[in-house]
Formats: sequence, structure tokens, C-alpha cells
Amino acid sequence: MALTDHTETTDVALNTDLYELTMAQGFWESGLVDTQACFNAFFRENPFEGGYAVSCGQGQIADLIDNFVFTDQTIDYLASIPAPAGGALFKHDFLEYLRNFHMHVSIWAPPEGELLFPREPMVRVEGPIIDCQLLETALLNLMNFQTLVATKTARVVTAAQGHAISDFGLRRAQGPDGGLAVARASYIGGASSTSNVLAGKIYGIPVFGTHAHSWVMAFPTELDAFRAFARSMPKNCVLLLDTYDVHQGIKNAITVAKEMEASGEHLAAIRIDSGDLAKLTKEARTAFDQAGLSYVKISASNDLDEYTIQSLFAQGAPIDSFGVGTKLATCDPQPSLGGVYKLSAVQDAPGEPWSPVIKLSEMSYKRTIPGIQHIRRYYDASGIPMGDQIVDDSVDQGSTDAIDAVDSMVSYDFSSAKPTELLEQIVCDGVRTKEPDSIEIAKSRCRDALMHLDPAIKRFLNPQFYPVGLEPGLAKLRYDLTRFERRGSGRDTTR
Amino acid sequence: MALTDHTETTDVALNTDLYELTMAQGFWESGLVDTQACFNAFFRENPFEGGYAVSCGQGQIADLIDNFVFTDQTIDYLASIPAPAGGALFKHDFLEYLRNFHMHVSIWAPPEGELLFPREPMVRVEGPIIDCQLLETALLNLMNFQTLVATKTARVVTAAQGHAISDFGLRRAQGPDGGLAVARASYIGGASSTSNVLAGKIYGIPVFGTHAHSWVMAFPTELDAFRAFARSMPKNCVLLLDTYDVHQGIKNAITVAKEMEASGEHLAAIRIDSGDLAKLTKEARTAFDQAGLSYVKISASNDLDEYTIQSLFAQGAPIDSFGVGTKLATCDPQPSLGGVYKLSAVQDAPGEPWSPVIKLSEMSYKRTIPGIQHIRRYYDASGIPMGDQIVDDSVDQGSTDAIDAVDSMVSYDFSSAKPTELLEQIVCDGVRTKEPDSIEIAKSRCRDALMHLDPAIKRFLNPQFYPVGLEPGLAKLRYDLTRFERRGSGRDTTR
Repeated sequence: MALTDHTETTDVALNTDLYELTMAQGFWESGLVDTQACFNAFFRENPFEGGYAVSCGQGQIADLIDNFVFTDQTIDYLASIPAPAGGALFKHDFLEYLRNFHMHVSIWAPPEGELLFPREPMVRVEGPIIDCQLLETALLNLMNFQTLVATKTARVVTAAQGHAISDFGLRRAQGPDGGLAVARASYIGGASSTSNVLAGKIYGIPVFGTHAHSWVMAFPTELDAFRAFARSMPKNCVLLLDTYDVHQGIKNAITVAKEMEASGEHLAAIRIDSGDLAKLTKEARTAFDQAGLSYVKISASNDLDEYTIQSLFAQGAPIDSFGVGTKLATCDPQPSLGGVYKLSAVQDAPGEPWSPVIKLSEMSYKRTIPGIQHIRRYYDASGIPMGDQIVDDSVDQGSTDAIDAVDSMVSYDFSSAKPTELLEQIVCDGVRTKEPDSIEIAKSRCRDALMHLDPAIKRFLNPQFYPVGLEPGLAKLRYDLTRFERRGSGRDTTR
Repeated sequence: MALTDHTETTDVALNTDLYELTMAQGFWESGLVDTQACFNAFFRENPFEGGYAVSCGQGQIADLIDNFVFTDQTIDYLASIPAPAGGALFKHDFLEYLRNFHMHVSIWAPPEGELLFPREPMVRVEGPIIDCQLLETALLNLMNFQTLVATKTARVVTAAQGHAISDFGLRRAQGPDGGLAVARASYIGGASSTSNVLAGKIYGIPVFGTHAHSWVMAFPTELDAFRAFARSMPKNCVLLLDTYDVHQGIKNAITVAKEMEASGEHLAAIRIDSGDLAKLTKEARTAFDQAGLSYVKISASNDLDEYTIQSLFAQGAPIDSFGVGTKLATCDPQPSLGGVYKLSAVQDAPGEPWSPVIKLSEMSYKRTIPGIQHIRRYYDASGIPMGDQIVDDSVDQGSTDAIDAVDSMVSYDFSSAKPTELLEQIVCDGVRTKEPDSIEIAKSRCRDALMHLDPAIKRFLNPQFYPVGLEPGLAKLRYDLTRFERRGSGRDTTR
């Protein structure tokens, strides 16, 4: 794994699909070295059949650009790859080009923690087409999963109604930096802490934990185990009650809580990790209250997600905090955002006019949006977002209407609201233009954005649709290109 | 991300849940430093409602042990973690203990690529209880996901009936080493290649790729783009046909294939990435055959998995190879194996007798298996595996019967078959005892094991059950412990 061989993991330029490199060679050979491109990453549907997504991962893009170099060792490896029909896949001169390669892209992205909707740029990349192409896989690898986790967490946090959520998912993540991505993105999405100690060290996220069943099984009796844990952790004592029998576990925990009181300490909480959590937490709450231990909190875990947490509260379960693991770290039941990275405009050389381009499909929802896109988010007077407009300045009609990207007969009218630009530039010609926000800032941005979002859009079942459309000039451009491409199977060079 | 800061990613000891460290401190404070433990990692159900799993990840355990040290930087971070109710979470003397810590575990595991079934040890760890506990999260993080991916791939490869599968999943993986884990495990599970170039460099896996839609959109027409790609990649030319219109794409590809023939080259293949793959690949096959281009292969991609591939062949789709991405890298629809790591025996000090322990639950399927377990796999005379027996040598009755772990009224009779031991020792007292197999060996082991497995067990829908049971002595031990624990909520110290 990467974790055990750091000399290899620093190879960010190779964290890519092979075709990015073969296309780069093709562009280089075909004389497109000066061709400029504009690419957008976006997703086509909100994850989890929900009403929104939380943008995440963008704060690490500038690091990726800084580290994007082809080392001698990397070049040696590329030179060793055979072509299927014989010979080497990469040409010597192209590899020398890569050896001296420096990223010259400019990048715009929404801030981390901001809400994002289908077809809006998660990132917009402009620069030499080779540079842009080489970033595709790494950018998607960085943002697809973190955006998904931040969104999942926002849903779980919404269900938890202000009660704390801790990320417990490391053991079910895809290796060490899968776990790091989960911890980082879930913190931005609203989790209070993580069990992942490495994430605590690297990102400064508060770390949290209790004990495992093995702790109880290591001692002759459960009572012995609870007493030993209370002695070791008098200021941080959370006892796990379900190793053998929860009913007996409650009694043993009350015994230890009383003993702690006698020595001036307080049992912080108990945790239940299996069985009927609604029933068992009520039983525990009643028993602790009757024993005069109403200050002891109740924590629950065991395959939780937004739906089980919502159900537990609907049943009146007296739970104070949640450990959420597997379904957070894997984003069950939708483990992929499905974000893609598509070319939207081409320029034969710097300074030439841009040609917008479009990708068509039998499936109309897969048709892309052309042009150099940015996003205007319209807010009402009380700061509630009313809808978004995707805009290409070169064809901007200055309208506050927005034409739906799927059903072009539908349009939205944002004339009563005030626009704010959503994308910000983070890299200019390969150099970062601003330091990324701290994860604390991203976290509070997400909290604020969710607080101002219409509850109907946050609903899990059949959420209301948040209006996103194309500024009419861009809608017309897309319509014209669609008609042209259907005829000619090529981009419109007559424009 | 880990990829950009390798000094932090080498911190394998911190790739863990906080409670492993707090429990370690608790064991240390409670005088259990000499206590020896036996832990097993296992899963409770086959993934994907299937009949088997493919063990994977074990080949990297010895690296983990080698790298398991607490650096000064790590200790400084741990010293900085506050306890929730004030003060430091970790005590100075315990941190000094960690600073001088060396792993003294011994480890047994099934070889990578071997088939594995519910409740069987994916790994067995013996040693000081602190050492064993500190490994929990890292071992699960290493094996849970890789075993899941290898199993998913084995299913996809089964559906593909000998046609090549390439891993295209990096952009949907959980960061760089998520992508590496996917590439490694899918290769062991039967994939022929990966698009992930870093995996090619690190693991020596063959790399494969074609081109993206952006290649086509970067040129004035699709025909221009195909010609440029053929010029750049004459020996490796795979053309992607669905940027604008597949029917026109087929015509353009045939034009280019004929031009390639005229200059002595051959178009290798075409790829279709959207639309009705069954219909479009048949249309393409017919058109290429009629043009005298029957040597041109057809590759398909677009959210494929074992079910879509099975359906494509059932419809007679003439597809020669598959790119499988999202659903391989995320193991959709079951993104987690759910493997756990449970204490099964305790020894007060080295040389003392072992006390087997058990974890109970309201849910009987969550009851663990006690003891020092290993696996006997019984083969018939033709090398077909008939079933497995989980054995604890200390209570072995020498029987060839096996008692089902869930329904103890059911037993299997393996008397007609020949047993082979499945687990092998890979670490002794913290030192590796054998070099891990190469991934090529693991891959061929997986292929052989699947070839000998009853097709009814490989079936996707309601697969036949592979018999796994407890050797009768172990079944009796488990029965006795269950009765005792239900009474006493503690382990049986009277044994």
C-alpha cells in the first residue's frame, strides 16, 4: 500500500489513467501543444436521490498542481511500458517533453462546503489542452469521493438534529488515504470528530473513541473490565454495554458509575453497538435516570445512516451522540458520485477566439454544456438561495432567466433576487492565487448554507428541486451546437 | 491528501481508530502488559449475496508490521490530544512505552487469491494483547476492501466468460491508494490490466487505455480526430465512437481503418461508452465485418458490472473486452465487506493456559467463535473443495464432521474427502517468516480455485451454499461458553 512506500506515493503525475498520457502524446504529436482548452468537472444527479451536494476536495487542488512533476524515475517507468503490438508505448521525445513539464493551467472552483447542484462546475480548468487533460483523473479522484462523503455527512447531521456525529469509518475505507478523505470530508460536512488518529494529526480534526468488545472480553468479568476502564479513563469514560447482555451491562455500568461518584469522578457516557437501539437506549435512559445518573450520556453505533437515525428519533430514542462508520465511509447506498470531466471549449492558440464544444449522446441527459462556464447564485433579501444560473460571459444576454438544462421548455425567473458569483479562482497559470480555506471555515460555510436552504430541498424523500438553469445566451449556444453536431459529427468551425 | 505529504503517510501506527490507543493505555495501566491474546478477522456473510469471497490484502500485512513504529513526531501529536474533561488523554509514561514499542505478534492467514467463506479467519493474530489491539483498524483497513474488490472482480470475470476485463475505476476510488488497492485486488481477482498508471509502476500490473471524448472534441471533426489518433498510435489504436453519434462514428472508424490498412497498419479496436451497448455493438460488428474488418475488436464500457455483462452476452453482444470502472472501484451495490476483528482467546501470561472467549449478541448470527482457530479445507479426489472445518487443536476431537456455525442442528460429513490446512504463518514474533507471494501467483491461485469450485456456488442468483462448520470439539466449546456467558456476563475462569 501507499502507506508503506512513500517514495512511490509522491508520484502524483502517475495517479492517472493511462489514456490521459497517451492522449497527451497524441496532442503533442498532432501539433496541438499550443491549443488551449476549457474543461469542467460536474455530476449529473444529486447523490442519494437528494436535493443537493456539498462541494469538497477543491481545497487540495493547489497542492496537486504544486506536486505535479514527472521525476526521472517516473520517466523511466513510462519508457518501459510496451505498446500492445510491439515497441514502446511512449516516444523518447515526448518523454523528454514530460521531463521538463510544468503545469500552466488556471483553475476556478466553488469554495469547499458550499452547496452544489447537478451540471454546475465542481471545478473549471483552462490552459494548454495537454495540461488540462493530464489533470482529469487526479481531479476526479480528489473531488468525486470527498463531495460524496461531505454530502452524505450533511444528510446524517440533518437527521441527527444537532446531536454530535463522529466518523468511525476508517476500517471500512479504501486504505489509509481513503480513511483520511472520509475524515476530512465528513468534518466539513458537519461531523464533530473522527476516530481516525492520523486525520487528527494531519488535519487537526478532534479525535474521539470509546472501547471495543475486546476490552470487556480481556477481563474475567464485564464488571472487572468496566472498573479497569474507569480507573484508566476517569475523565473520558464511555462504557460499551453489549458484549454479552445489554440488560446486565446497564446494571454493571450503573455500579461503576456509582463507584466513580464515590471517588469524585463521573461516568461520561455509555455506548450500545448492537440490538434494537430504540428499545435498549430507552431502557438504559430509564435505568440511569432512576439511579440518579441523568448526566450519563447515551451514544449509539451499528451501521447507522440518515435513515436509521431519523427512525430512532421518530421512536423517541434518547440518544445523545452517534458513531457513524461503514455507511459514511462507503457512502452506502450510492458509493460513487459519478462526476465527469468534459471539454467545453477549445482555442487554437492563446489569444484566438474560443470555440465552444459539446458532447452528445443517445441519452439526452448526458449532453454536455458548452462554453466557459461560471455560476451565479441568486439570493432573496433574507439570504435564502433561490436558484442558480450557469453563464458564459461571451454569450451573456444579461437576462435573469435560466433555461433548464434537461427540459429546455422550462425556465426560471430570478429577477427578484440578487446574484453572487460562486466560483473563485484558485490557480493562475500553474501558481496558486489564494491559500485554501481552513477546514473549519469550510465546515462553517457548509453549516450556514444548509441553515439557509429550504427544508423541502433537504428532505430525504422526494426532495424539492433546486432550480438551476442556463443563462439564455448559453442555452441558445447549446441549442445551436446540438443541431450542428447532430448534422456534422464535428465541432462548428463556421462560428 | 496523503499523496502530497509523504512524511505523514508513513505514520502507519496512527492509521487507526483512537480507541485502539486508549485501550492500549488501559491494558498497560491495568497490568495486562504480559497478557497474550488471539484475535481473528472475519466477515459474517459473503459479499454481493454470492457464494464465496476471494481473500486479498494479506500479502501486505508483513509490510505493515515492519513499518509499525511510533516516531517522535507521532508521540508529540499523541501528547497533544486533550481528554474531553481536561488534561491530556495519554499519560507520559505510556507514551514513552510507545516510543520504544516493537510489534511481537505472530500472524497466520490464508494465501491471497484463495477462496474464503463466512466466519473463517481472514487473519489470525497472536501476541501481547496491546500489540494485537493496536493492529485492529489497520488490518481491517487493509483486507476488508481488497477482499471485497477481488471478490467483485472474480464475479465480473466469471460473467465475462474469458473475455478480458480492465480496471477503469481510479476516478471513482477513494483517493490515490484507494485506486491502488482497486488495481491490485482486481488484478488478483482476475482483471487483465488496469488504467491506473501508478499501479502499473508500483505493482507491475499491465496498463491499458484508449482515448476520451475530449480527444474527439479537440479536433474540428470526428474524422480528423480519428485520423490523428491513428497517426499517433498506429500500433495501439482503439477509437471511441460515441462522442456525437455512434452510427456516424462507425462509418468514420471504418474510413480510418481502411486508411490504416493502406499504410500497412491495423485498427486494433473500437470502444463504445454509452447508449444501448447490445444494439450498438451488433451494429458495429456487422458494419466492420461487411467492410472486411473482422479483425477489429470491440470494447465496451459504461457502468458495467457482472449483471450487465451477463445480460450483454445473453443478448449475443459481440464484445471482445470490457472496461469496468465505477462499480468495480466502489463494489456497488455492496461497498463494504463488513469484516470485523474479534478476540477469541486470552492467556494471562506466555506459557499459561489459553482461555477461549466469546462475544454474544441479541442477534445470534453475531455470536463469535472462540479459540485458536485454523481451517481445514476438504478436497475430493478430483481436487474439488467439498467444505471447510474450523478447528481449535486444543479441543480437536479428530472428527471429520463439521457443525454449522449458525444452525447447530446441521452438520456436514467430510469423511470421504482429504483435508489441507488453509492458513499459513506469515509473521513470527514480529518478524516475517516468508516473503509474500507475487500478485501473479495470487492471481493464478484465484483462477485455479474458481475453476475447481462448483458452478452452482459461483452462480449470482441464489448460489448454492458452501459447507463450513466447526469441528465438533470447537462446537462443544462454543456451546458451553454461550451457556456460561449468558449466566455470568464474564468469561469462564473456572475452565
